[in-house]
Amino acid sequence: MSHVSLPAALDSPRRAVPETLKQALRDRFGARCAESLAVREQHGRDESPFDVAPPELVLFAESEEEVAFVLAQAHAHAVPVIPYGAGTSLEGHLLAVQGGISLDLSRMNRLLAVQAEDLTVTVQPGVTRHQLNNELRHQGLFFPIDPGADASLGGMAATRASGTNAVRYGTLRENVLALRVVTPGGEVIRTGSRARKSSAGYDLTRLFVGSEGTLGVITELTLRLYPLPEAVSAAICFFPSIDAAVQTTMQIIQMGVPIARCELLDANTVRAVNAHDHLGLRESAMLLMEFHGSEAGVAEQAATVQDIARDFGGEDFEWSRTPEERTRLWTARHHAYLSALQMKPGCRCVTTDTCVPISRLAESINESVAEVLASGLPYFIVGHVGDGNFHMGYLIDPALPAERETAERLSAQMVARALRLGGTCTGEHGIGLHKQDFLLDEAGEGAVDLMRTLKRAVDPRNIMNPGKIFRG
Amino acid sequence: MSHVSLPAALDSPRRAVPETLKQALRDRFGARCAESLAVREQHGRDESPFDVAPPELVLFAESEEEVAFVLAQAHAHAVPVIPYGAGTSLEGHLLAVQGGISLDLSRMNRLLAVQAEDLTVTVQPGVTRHQLNNELRHQGLFFPIDPGADASLGGMAATRASGTNAVRYGTLRENVLALRVVTPGGEVIRTGSRARKSSAGYDLTRLFVGSEGTLGVITELTLRLYPLPEAVSAAICFFPSIDAAVQTTMQIIQMGVPIARCELLDANTVRAVNAHDHLGLRESAMLLMEFHGSEAGVAEQAATVQDIARDFGGEDFEWSRTPEERTRLWTARHHAYLSALQMKPGCRCVTTDTCVPISRLAESINESVAEVLASGLPYFIVGHVGDGNFHMGYLIDPALPAERETAERLSAQMVARALRLGGTCTGEHGIGLHKQDFLLDEAGEGAVDLMRTLKRAVDPRNIMNPGKIFRG
Repeated sequence: MSHVSLPAALDSPRRAVPETLKQALRDRFGARCAESLAVREQHGRDESPFDVAPPELVLFAESEEEVAFVLAQAHAHAVPVIPYGAGTSLEGHLLAVQGGISLDLSRMNRLLAVQAEDLTVTVQPGVTRHQLNNELRHQGLFFPIDPGADASLGGMAATRASGTNAVRYGTLRENVLALRVVTPGGEVIRTGSRARKSSAGYDLTRLFVGSEGTLGVITELTLRLYPLPEAVSAAICFFPSIDAAVQTTMQIIQMGVPIARCELLDANTVRAVNAHDHLGLRESAMLLMEFHGSEAGVAEQAATVQDIARDFGGEDFEWSRTPEERTRLWTARHHAYLSALQMKPGCRCVTTDTCVPISRLAESINESVAEVLASGLPYFIVGHVGDGNFHMGYLIDPALPAERETAERLSAQMVARALRLGGTCTGEHGIGLHKQDFLLDEAGEGAVDLMRTLKRAVDPRNIMNPGKIFRG
Repeated sequence: MSHVSLPAALDSPRRAVPETLKQALRDRFGARCAESLAVREQHGRDESPFDVAPPELVLFAESEEEVAFVLAQAHAHAVPVIPYGAGTSLEGHLLAVQGGISLDLSRMNRLLAVQAEDLTVTVQPGVTRHQLNNELRHQGLFFPIDPGADASLGGMAATRASGTNAVRYGTLRENVLALRVVTPGGEVIRTGSRARKSSAGYDLTRLFVGSEGTLGVITELTLRLYPLPEAVSAAICFFPSIDAAVQTTMQIIQMGVPIARCELLDANTVRAVNAHDHLGLRESAMLLMEFHGSEAGVAEQAATVQDIARDFGGEDFEWSRTPEERTRLWTARHHAYLSALQMKPGCRCVTTDTCVPISRLAESINESVAEVLASGLPYFIVGHVGDGNFHMGYLIDPALPAERETAERLSAQMVARALRLGGTCTGEHGIGLHKQDFLLDEAGEGAVDLMRTLKRAVDPRNIMNPGKIFRG
C-alpha cells in the first residue's frame, strides 16, 4: 500500500532526545530500548496511509513503574512520548511527528483480576480483545466491544473505540469503569472504581477515554463484562437496495429492538468478501445481524426484524446457528477492508467514519453513494448502521493525485453532510492527524480551545503524543 | 427539620458583590434580580441539613444570552455564581458558602426539540423530569432516569444523577448526548452531537456531567430517549431477611436479567410508607421490581426472577399490572425518605449513598445493619440494589449532639467499607460540601489534584460554585 505525505501544517519540528536521556533509558531498559530503524519505523506508522514518522527510540515497558520513569524523564527533558498498543489505529495516531519516544505497552498484557461475580475484569493495557475473550470464555463471560482489528484494550480506550456490538453494548465510553494512568509528570493516579456508577467528582475516566494518548498513559483498565447470552443467532438478509437495508435498520432502532449487531455491507463489499473468503453470498446489499438473549427472546427479536425487513423488500433471513458458521461470517466481515483493497491491485483506501442520528442515516448514505457514483471512483461500504455509523472506502490509485483529491473532496462532503444532519465526523476512529479541521467544524473553536486548555493544564510541556487531535 | 453548621474548613470568606455589578444586574434583569432575604434564603439551601448560606442576590435567567452576560460580569469581578435548578440536591451543592450570585435557571424550561425518530430530545436546563415525561408520553417515548425528586435536567446532569431505572438504562453519564455550556468567561460552547457515539476529541460532555456547577452553566441538553416498552409489569416480593433480598438481587444481576428496576426496602421503610401512604404492605424486607419488554419477554424475566427469589426464601410475587397501581407503588417508594422522617417527629436524617460491586452488596448492607443496630439509632434502608447502591438513613435528634456524632461515625464506617470493597462513597448524590474527605479517601490525592488542575484551567478565578467537590 502506498503512503501519502503528512499535511504540511502537521509537519512540526522534531524535538531531539538528548544523548543523556538516551543513555539513561538504555541503562534502565537494556535490550528493551530499541534504536534500529526497522523497529522505529514499525512503531512510526499505523494502519493509516500516512508516511512513516519514526520515533528516535522505542521502549518496551513491562511495568507501570517503568512507564512512570519514562514519563518523568520525558517531562524533565520535554521530549515527546507516544503510547503504542497493537498499532491498529487508523488516523495517524502513532506517528512520531515531533520525534521522541514510542512507548510500547504490548508486553504489559496480563489479566490482573477477573471478578466474575461482579462482571468486571482488570487488565493491563497491552491485553488484546481476542486474548481477553479467550481467557474469559470458560467463565461464561465476554467483553463485547469489537472494532474488527485485534486491538489492545489500552488503545481501544484511548480511541474510544466501538465496532459491531456497540448498538447493544455501547462503546469503550460506557464500558470502562476505572483506570490507572501515569500523568505527564510521571505520577500514577486512579480514576473511577469498580462500582457501576458514581458521582464522586469529575469524570476523569471519561477524560482519558478518547484522549488519544495526549493526556497520559493508561496502565490499567477495569472493564465491564457481560454473561455470554443463553442464545445467539446470526442472520443475513438481502435487500433490493442499500436504501431498503438502511430503512429497515432505522425502524429496528426506532422500535427499540435490542439487536446485538446490525451491519450493512453493500454489493461491492459482498463481492470483495466473496472473492477473499469464498463465501458465495449473493452480491446485493445485505444486513448481517446478530441477536442475543434467551432462546425465546432471540426468536422474538428475529421475527420482529424479519417483519420489518419484508416491509422494505428484504428477503427471508438466512441463518447461521452454529458458532462456527457465525465465526466464518464475522471473520469475513472483519476482512471486508482487506478484501476490498484487493479488488483494485496497488490501490490505497481513503476511509470515512461519519455517524449520524439514526433517522438521517438513509440521507447520509444515499447522498454519499450518489456522489461517489458520479465521481467514478471505485468504493465500498461497510457500516455499524444500528449506530448510524458507516465507513465508505474510496479506492484510489496513489500514482494519480487527481484520484486522491477526489476522494478527499468526497470525504469532506460526507463530513459536512454528517455535521449538517446533527452527526459527527468520527464515530469510532478518532481525530489523530487527519480530521483536525473536521473537529473544528464539528465542535467549534470554543470547544476545541477548551480541549487545548485542558491539554495545557494536564501536560504543560506537551510531551504526550503532541500534534494529535488539535494543533498547538 | 433542624439544620447543622457547615464544617469549619468549608466556612470560606465570602466575596462581596460590588455595588457597580449589582446595579448592572438590576438594570439587566429588572424584577428578575431578587435581593429579598426570603428569596436569597430559599436559594441558599438544598435538601441537605446544612445551615442556609444565602447568596447576595438571585437572578432568574430566561436565556443563554443572559447566562453568558452574568458569567462574563462575574468573571470580570471574581464573584461566585451558583447555578440553581429545582433545589433538590442533597449534599449542600446550592449553598453560597462564599457568597455571590445564585443563578436560577428554572425559567429556562422549554423542550426545544423532540426528535422522536432519533430517540433524542433537546431541552433547556430548567425542564424537570416530570415535565419532560409528561410532554413526551403522547409520542410513545420516555426519559427513564428517575432520582425520585422532580429534579431539573440541568441539575441532574450536573450531579450525574441516576435513581431507580439506572440498572437498566444507565445514569445521566450514559444518557446525555450533547450540551451547550456557558464557560466561566461567558463564552458559549457546544459539546457532543446527536450521534449515538463519537470519537471526536476529548469527552467534554462527560467533563461537565457530574461537575456540580463548578466548571460552567449548562444551558441546553440533548438526551437519549427510549420507546415506552410494549409491556411493563411491577412486582413486590417479600423476603425473610434483608440478606435474602440482597442475595436474590445479586443473582439477578449476575445472570444478566435485564430488570428495569430493582429496589430494596427494609422492614423499617415498609412500616414508614405504610403509615404515610396507607399501603397495608407486610412489614418485611422486600424487593420492588419492574420489568420492561415485550409481553413474552416480561413474563420470562419475571419467571426467572421468581425462581431465583424462591431459592432464597422469597414469597410469591404480588403483581401490579395497571399503570395506576404501579404509580401508587412508585409514589410510595419516592415518599420513603419523607415517610421515614415522620417516624421520629422532629428528627433529622443523615443519609448515605455508597455503591459497591454487586458481589459485595450483601457484605456492605449486612455489616452496616449490624453497626446501626449496635448503635441503637433508628434507621431505614432504601436501595437501588441492582446497581449496588443503597441509602441508609440514620434518624437523629438534632438536640442531641451525641446522636449526630454516632450517625457521622456510622456513615464514615460505611464509606470506608465501601471503598475497601471496591466501591464509591457516592453512587448518585455527589460530593458537594459533605463528602470532600471521602473523595480524597476514594480517589487519592493525585486524582483530586488533577481535578483541581482542571478546575483552575477552566475557571481561573474560581467563580463557579466555589468550595464544592474539593477545597481550594
